[in-house]
Formats: sequence, structure tokens, C-alpha cells
Amino acid sequence: MDGALDRVGDAYREILANTSRESRDMVRHAARFNGKRLRPALTLAAARLAGSEVTDDVASSAAIVELIHTATLVHDDILDSADVRRKVATVNVRWGNHAAVLVGDVLFSKAYRAAAYLDDPFASRYLSDIVGQVLEGEIHQDHVSHDPSLGEEEYREIIRGKTASLYEAALVVGAHYGGASEDLKGSLGAFGHHLGMAFQIIDDRLDVTGDEATVGKSLGTDMSEGKMTLPLIIWRDGLAPEGREAAVARIQHAWSCDEGAQELASELHTSGALERTDTAAQAEIDRALACLTAVPEGADRQLLATIAGFVVRRRL
Amino acid sequence: MDGALDRVGDAYREILANTSRESRDMVRHAARFNGKRLRPALTLAAARLAGSEVTDDVASSAAIVELIHTATLVHDDILDSADVRRKVATVNVRWGNHAAVLVGDVLFSKAYRAAAYLDDPFASRYLSDIVGQVLEGEIHQDHVSHDPSLGEEEYREIIRGKTASLYEAALVVGAHYGGASEDLKGSLGAFGHHLGMAFQIIDDRLDVTGDEATVGKSLGTDMSEGKMTLPLIIWRDGLAPEGREAAVARIQHAWSCDEGAQELASELHTSGALERTDTAAQAEIDRALACLTAVPEGADRQLLATIAGFVVRRRL
Repeated sequence: MDGALDRVGDAYREILANTSRESRDMVRHAARFNGKRLRPALTLAAARLAGSEVTDDVASSAAIVELIHTATLVHDDILDSADVRRKVATVNVRWGNHAAVLVGDVLFSKAYRAAAYLDDPFASRYLSDIVGQVLEGEIHQDHVSHDPSLGEEEYREIIRGKTASLYEAALVVGAHYGGASEDLKGSLGAFGHHLGMAFQIIDDRLDVTGDEATVGKSLGTDMSEGKMTLPLIIWRDGLAPEGREAAVARIQHAWSCDEGAQELASELHTSGALERTDTAAQAEIDRALACLTAVPEGADRQLLATIAGFVVRRRL
Repeated sequence: MDGALDRVGDAYREILANTSRESRDMVRHAARFNGKRLRPALTLAAARLAGSEVTDDVASSAAIVELIHTATLVHDDILDSADVRRKVATVNVRWGNHAAVLVGDVLFSKAYRAAAYLDDPFASRYLSDIVGQVLEGEIHQDHVSHDPSLGEEEYREIIRGKTASLYEAALVVGAHYGGASEDLKGSLGAFGHHLGMAFQIIDDRLDVTGDEATVGKSLGTDMSEGKMTLPLIIWRDGLAPEGREAAVARIQHAWSCDEGAQELASELHTSGALERTDTAAQAEIDRALACLTAVPEGADRQLLATIAGFVVRRRL
């Protein structure tokens, strides 16, 4: 298990090799962001469930998905004015927005290049589609920012694109390069989708309740950026109709000042909205686990189930 | 000729189709930037010189190169704080930096996707390399910004990456998908390289001398951003050694305030540095034309020579 993840790490570093003297420090700095290595573990498990060894193509495709994720983080940080990610100063804080745009572009270009050099064009085609979905999710999110009327369905469409699609991709490329049947690829991809949905819902919750030192990134940023997250939606929708108007005003107040944000965070705690957010995440995990019934039994299926449990219980 | 360029336009729009409701306006706005259509004309000429019709692959590869160019412009505008490009407000001014980063990313992802769906993986592999060269050139340029000691050789290395590589690519993809021999591909690529070098040198000159209304983009930005352009390098290097220290101070003054920039622009006019910049551009054009001796005679070779003449005489 660890040895196989090391091979993904090797592939990741190899893809980033041959960087110019001027960009090397920034690229290395950005590449330190890869933290929990959840997606690479998912790719490897999917390949083994398809009956494959961890081949070079499997390791490369895992590294490419992780690199795409890293690139989106670098560009996200420009959007969010977030100062800290993984306890490391973000690229834009250290070198400016100029550099952060370009470094993210370099990471994307290296990911696309590595995909293009695989013999099978699947990764190149599929992952450029997935990147499109991630970006459309982020653009959609910007489009509805500061809109306290955002509905749960539209919220789910946004996080499907910006987060779940790349979890799905991590499983699908592993399954594909492991030689899985279309059925197995579909089941593993669906597992990844629901896992990613749960991951983002918990991320929303941690932005309200997390400990910044543990999580290792700036928290409360969703609130300060006017993001309508699931805890807010659940709280608003759980109120009696006559309380909705005041709720909208409280949300807008929370977006405009720290005191408002702190008051609303307390309200989310006491109203039970956070527990109901956890329940929604658990429901996605249950759907993910249901997808595993179509997957061969054994250590790797158990690993996927364990990762699913980790995602919903995580506090970082 | 115009009909073939229309096919590139159709391919360009087709690549950009299937954009989400939320991003459509921004993507369309960015895509209006493609102005002189020089690169598509070069791709088509290269394909015909290789003895090919304008096939779907040729038209697509021309559109992909142009789309990569568009994506880099959108991201450049974030870097440059440029307000106006092609007489249209830039994406970042109209929708903010958030959106401009994401729209550029969408354009890149659609370009990579279109390349990945061609049967022959050449475009996908080669163009991801080229994008890397463009980005490394831009990162290198940022790295030496506000350095009045930048030498001409290093300057040329920067513009080779940021500008000439994409001109070279326009020719190379046309030659490749037109079925050219490696020799012809090399000659056409070398023509594109020298043409791109000349294009950038003239761009540097127009930033000092151009008419904003004609050129259709913000001028004087190189100076306000502390860019060491060829007119400045030529002026500095043409002074007697005892004048260099004062020259460095004048360049730094020009980078720090508008009055300094205007005074230095006058000095560039009167000192003959601009004429010597034109001579340097013409030398690149002469090298480009020399590459054409290895290219089949006829209307398309003449077209390339005409474009070369336009590039060095252009005032927009």
C-alpha cells in the first residue's frame, strides 16, 4: 500500500521535473500542497479491484489527477484570498497573483502533457472533460455568491462539478487503466461521486466548526466570501416560513462582518443545522457504500469503505 | 482563402460550444479577442504547402492554437492590470480576477480537450509542450521584471518562449496535419519562430510609439510594469560605458512614474534606439524569409512572405 503510493509520488515528481530555474521554487512550493493523498489511494484501489497490478499507467494517471487538484488549489487561492493552505503560505501570498496564475497554468499544462503521452488517449480526453466540469462548478459558485436564496438542488449541482467530479475521476482512471469492465468502472465512478459529495459537505461544515490548527487552512472563508454552504441552506430551510426573511437578513449580515458570522455560527450550532449537515454527508456515504456491493470483495473494497468512513468523520 | 479562415472560425466556435449558462457570456466575451487571425492564416498556408487540403484536422489545429493564444491573453490581463484589449474591456475588469482566472482555465481546458479528440496524438503532445514554453517565458519575464541590467540574450530567450513558440506552433501543426516531411515541417517551424521574434520586437516598439486607438489595447504598460524591452536594452547598450549608470537610473525612474516614462520615450525617439529596434525586427524577418527558400514556390509561400512584411511594418 505505502510502496504503491510512493510510486504515485515518484510519478508526480517525474511529471514536474524539467521545470525552468525561474519557476522551480514556485512549482515545488505548490506541489507541497498534496496532503491526505486520498485520491491517489482511490485510484490504486480501483486498479487493483479491476484485477491489475499498479502499472506505470495507473501510477501516472493517479499522479495526473492529483496534479490537476493541486493546480485548482493554486488558482482557487487567488479567488479566495486565502492566506494559508496546509500550513504553508499560498503561492499568491508569497509570490503575488501574477505568479500564482502562471504556476497553476504550468501545473495544468504538465498534467495535460503527462496524460497526452500515455499510449491510451482515454486520460487525455476524459480528464480534459473533468477539468471542464470542475471549472464550470467553480464558475457557477461565483455566479451565485452572496445569494442567500440558493436552493439545495443548485448547491448540489455546484459541488458535483467543483469537488465530486475529481473524486469520481480518481476512481475511473484507476479502473480504466486497470482494465475494468464498463460496469465495474461505472460502480467505482459512482462510489467516487458520492464520496466526493460527502467530502465537500463535510468541508462546508468544517469551515464553520473546524480548528484552524488541525485543518491546516484558513477557516471561516466561506462565510467571509458570501458562499451559501449546506449548513446555511439546511438552517434556512428548516425555519418556519415566517422566519425566512429574518434568516436571509442574518445570512447577509454574516457575510458582511465577523460579528455577524460568529453569531450565525453559534445559531448553526444550537439549531441542530450542523447535525443535519452531518446526516446529509452520511447519506452520501451510504449511497457510496451501496455502490460497493457491485465491486469484488476483499482488502481493496474494505479500503474504499474505510476511506468513506474517514471522510465523514474527518476533522481535517 | 477567406472561406478557409471561416472554417477555422467555425472550428473555434464549435470547440467553445457546450459551455454552461453561467460561463457562456464570459467565454464569448473572451473569444472576441481574436483579432488579426495571423496564426490561423499561417496554419492554413503551412498545410497547403505540405500539399494538403484544409481538412477538419487542419482547421481544428489552427483553432486550437488560436484558442491557446486567447487563454494566455485572458490570464496575461490579470498579470498586467491592462484595462483594454482589442477595444473591449478585459474579462478581469468586467467580471473580476476570480472570473478571469477561471475563464482562462476553461479556454485552456477546451483547447486541450479538442486536441485530445484528434485521432493523431501529435497536437495534444506537442501543444502541451508549447504551452509550457509560453508559460516558462512569462515566468522568466516576471522573474527579471524591474531589472535594468537584463541582457539582450536573456531578453531573446524570454520572447522566444512567451511569443515565438506559439507562432512556430501555428506553422508546425499546419505542416504536421497537412502531412509535411520532417524537413519541410522544420523549415516552416523555423520561419514561424523568426516571425514570432519579429512580432514581439515590434510589439515592444509599439508600446513606446503606438497610437492606442489604432492598436486597440493599453499602451505604455511595459514601462509601467517594469518590463525591460528591446528598445530600452538597445538604448542602454548603445551608450558609452560612463553613461550606463545614469541610464539605469533613468530606466528605474521611468518605471516609477509617468513623467519619467514620457521623458525616456522621447529619449528613445531622439537617440535612434527605435530605428535600431526596427532593424533588429527586420533582421528576424530576413531570417524568416531565408527559411522559405526550402519551401515550395507559389501563392502560399508568397502569402507567408507577405505576412512577414506586414508584421514588421504593422502599426497595430
